[in-house]
Amino acid sequence: MTDTSLPVVRMLPKGNALAIRHGFPWVYANELVLDRRTKKLPAGSLAVLQDAERKPLGVVAFNANSKITCRMLDRSPDAVIDGAWFDGKLKAALAHRETLFDAPFYRLVHAEADGLPGVIIDRFGDVAVVQPNTAWADRLIEALLHALMRVTGVSTVIVNGTGRTRALEGLDDRTEVARGAAPAGPIAVPMNGAVYMADVLGGQKTGLFYDQRPNHAFAARLSKGARVLDVFSHVGGFGLATLAGGATSALAVDGSADALALAEQGAGQMGVADRFATRKGDAFSVLEDLAKDKELFDVVICDPPAFAPSKKALEAGLRAYERVARLAAPLVKPGGYLGLCSCSHAADLTKFRNASARGIGRARRRGQIVHTGFAGPDHPLMPHLAESGYLKALFFRL
Amino acid sequence: MTDTSLPVVRMLPKGNALAIRHGFPWVYANELVLDRRTKKLPAGSLAVLQDAERKPLGVVAFNANSKITCRMLDRSPDAVIDGAWFDGKLKAALAHRETLFDAPFYRLVHAEADGLPGVIIDRFGDVAVVQPNTAWADRLIEALLHALMRVTGVSTVIVNGTGRTRALEGLDDRTEVARGAAPAGPIAVPMNGAVYMADVLGGQKTGLFYDQRPNHAFAARLSKGARVLDVFSHVGGFGLATLAGGATSALAVDGSADALALAEQGAGQMGVADRFATRKGDAFSVLEDLAKDKELFDVVICDPPAFAPSKKALEAGLRAYERVARLAAPLVKPGGYLGLCSCSHAADLTKFRNASARGIGRARRRGQIVHTGFAGPDHPLMPHLAESGYLKALFFRL
Repeated sequence: MTDTSLPVVRMLPKGNALAIRHGFPWVYANELVLDRRTKKLPAGSLAVLQDAERKPLGVVAFNANSKITCRMLDRSPDAVIDGAWFDGKLKAALAHRETLFDAPFYRLVHAEADGLPGVIIDRFGDVAVVQPNTAWADRLIEALLHALMRVTGVSTVIVNGTGRTRALEGLDDRTEVARGAAPAGPIAVPMNGAVYMADVLGGQKTGLFYDQRPNHAFAARLSKGARVLDVFSHVGGFGLATLAGGATSALAVDGSADALALAEQGAGQMGVADRFATRKGDAFSVLEDLAKDKELFDVVICDPPAFAPSKKALEAGLRAYERVARLAAPLVKPGGYLGLCSCSHAADLTKFRNASARGIGRARRRGQIVHTGFAGPDHPLMPHLAESGYLKALFFRL
Repeated sequence: MTDTSLPVVRMLPKGNALAIRHGFPWVYANELVLDRRTKKLPAGSLAVLQDAERKPLGVVAFNANSKITCRMLDRSPDAVIDGAWFDGKLKAALAHRETLFDAPFYRLVHAEADGLPGVIIDRFGDVAVVQPNTAWADRLIEALLHALMRVTGVSTVIVNGTGRTRALEGLDDRTEVARGAAPAGPIAVPMNGAVYMADVLGGQKTGLFYDQRPNHAFAARLSKGARVLDVFSHVGGFGLATLAGGATSALAVDGSADALALAEQGAGQMGVADRFATRKGDAFSVLEDLAKDKELFDVVICDPPAFAPSKKALEAGLRAYERVARLAAPLVKPGGYLGLCSCSHAADLTKFRNASARGIGRARRRGQIVHTGFAGPDHPLMPHLAESGYLKALFFRL
């Protein structure tokens, strides 16, 4: 029995209803009957999706402002998207993370794959940071926050409504402490034996990137007794992990003085401040300067921002990744390791690997690939969107 | 100065000398001048490769019997392929493994990526198993074995000359204890806290598969308190790792009674025999039987042999992977995990993922991908051959 209180949105005969039936979670604008009544539905409205023969496909979130016009919420057309529904999604997400991790520091909800389209929730102990990057989540934010506190027991919830994805949905920016008290300062986050200081109110995205956790761990394995260079370090992701793994020194390079200050705080908490140094500056310039000074490292890792966030930016982005590899390779001792990362959706693994290998070759070095890593298991993927896994980490031995 | 004692092999103008210059390691028969003199070179001869303009490209191993007619050994045309040369390759390979592992149990040499084309060496403490899968390695086996003992200090070397790759090179099968004394029985191999019994003389390939080590470790993380099913278990790869990770029970299914007996020995050495059971039989039939009996597991892992070892076998192989997924998915509890592996060269990650997702869908289950893994870091890849990374492991949460 379909919930008759919900409006109906219908697919065109050319719409790919079969893909939806097979699990694809999105319907694009050009697959839908967008008549005047439908177009008037407020952004983020719930609706029942029907195929062209009026057979119901499920309850979707509708947004006429977005190219992704419908996002599947529940494949039962009778589903009621209420507190109990949110509880179910969050409990399933939490059970997976509690299987994986000993301490409550992880990405709790990774959007579509966790059944909450466009919603990102990162957990920092008793604090959760929610990114409601879709209109439906903005509309139902109160029910989501209630469920989040109920299921996880966190005492503070910050809603971070910034970033590119919200713009694509036609949403404005807003960040607020929605529940509980604002944390007094950065939160100390334990990960791979290191300590990271997460500025959950003022930092990038949700304050810390959990996605690199397994790649940090791999870098740490390579770093016993090593001299390490961590370029685009943010709050010290790779550098502090390698110090926890026994590196004799780590130099963190970033353009943000704030991020480097947090990295230094983390090193202080770990008791490794004497082995940790920072250098503020443009990463490309610093790489060139280090080469001029004939500096050599056992392990060099470059984890730049997304150079190719969209298809339009792909060619320029790949050239930037090649340049990073070309400038970083000369700093690696023979037999040392070079870790290169991309968080660009548009650059797939093959393209990123080729750009990296090209850059290494242009530096007149050769390398074998010893590790290919992706985002950690608290960043699940829907099989239908798996090609879009954004994070890739390649470790070369030169 | 080119070593004038070596014969010269020349590329045709249509041969891709640029690819060789950029690091590609192989020259195919149709890229070469194969005159009567060249064709007469014994399989496995060393030669200097020249481009069509007679510029030297390096020292190669030549084999007119193989489609891959030249394999690059050294990019210096003056290189002398002697004991010191082998020492250098083995020392570099050893240094990488000693960085990665606390105990001497690993793949020491992974063919092209470790600079020894077609040569596989697995190390089991004081015992090394060499697979000389190329004609040149057969010819220079004595120098290789001398260097291997010198560099690693192993006391026993077994040469295992079996398998499909040797046939492609036109080599016959032979297995012998080439140095030292044959081990008295299976060797106990510690990995991820488990113990595996490797039959280095009578087992498959080199007696144990080291390649799944990181994927075993991931499965172990999911398995605390879990009931586990390990299908195509061989000597207990995933099953024993999950018991080491705290599984309450593991059932290993395999067609080989010998492999299952070794798995039971391993469980005995670990002191987990009471939590470990085996079932000999055809994996597909056993999966169907378990479903009929309404058995359910928290974690199910299927690590079948290569269903698609060649392009010719691809379509049938993908259907077999889909069938594995379809039969295994119903055995997974809601919220449980399904690990699916492929060691087929011909099935790339996308094709394997699609076949797996299709099989899960045909079992009327849905899953999120929580982990994508490859062979461990003791199985490095050349960037130019990275597409051919054979091992893929996908973990779904259903």
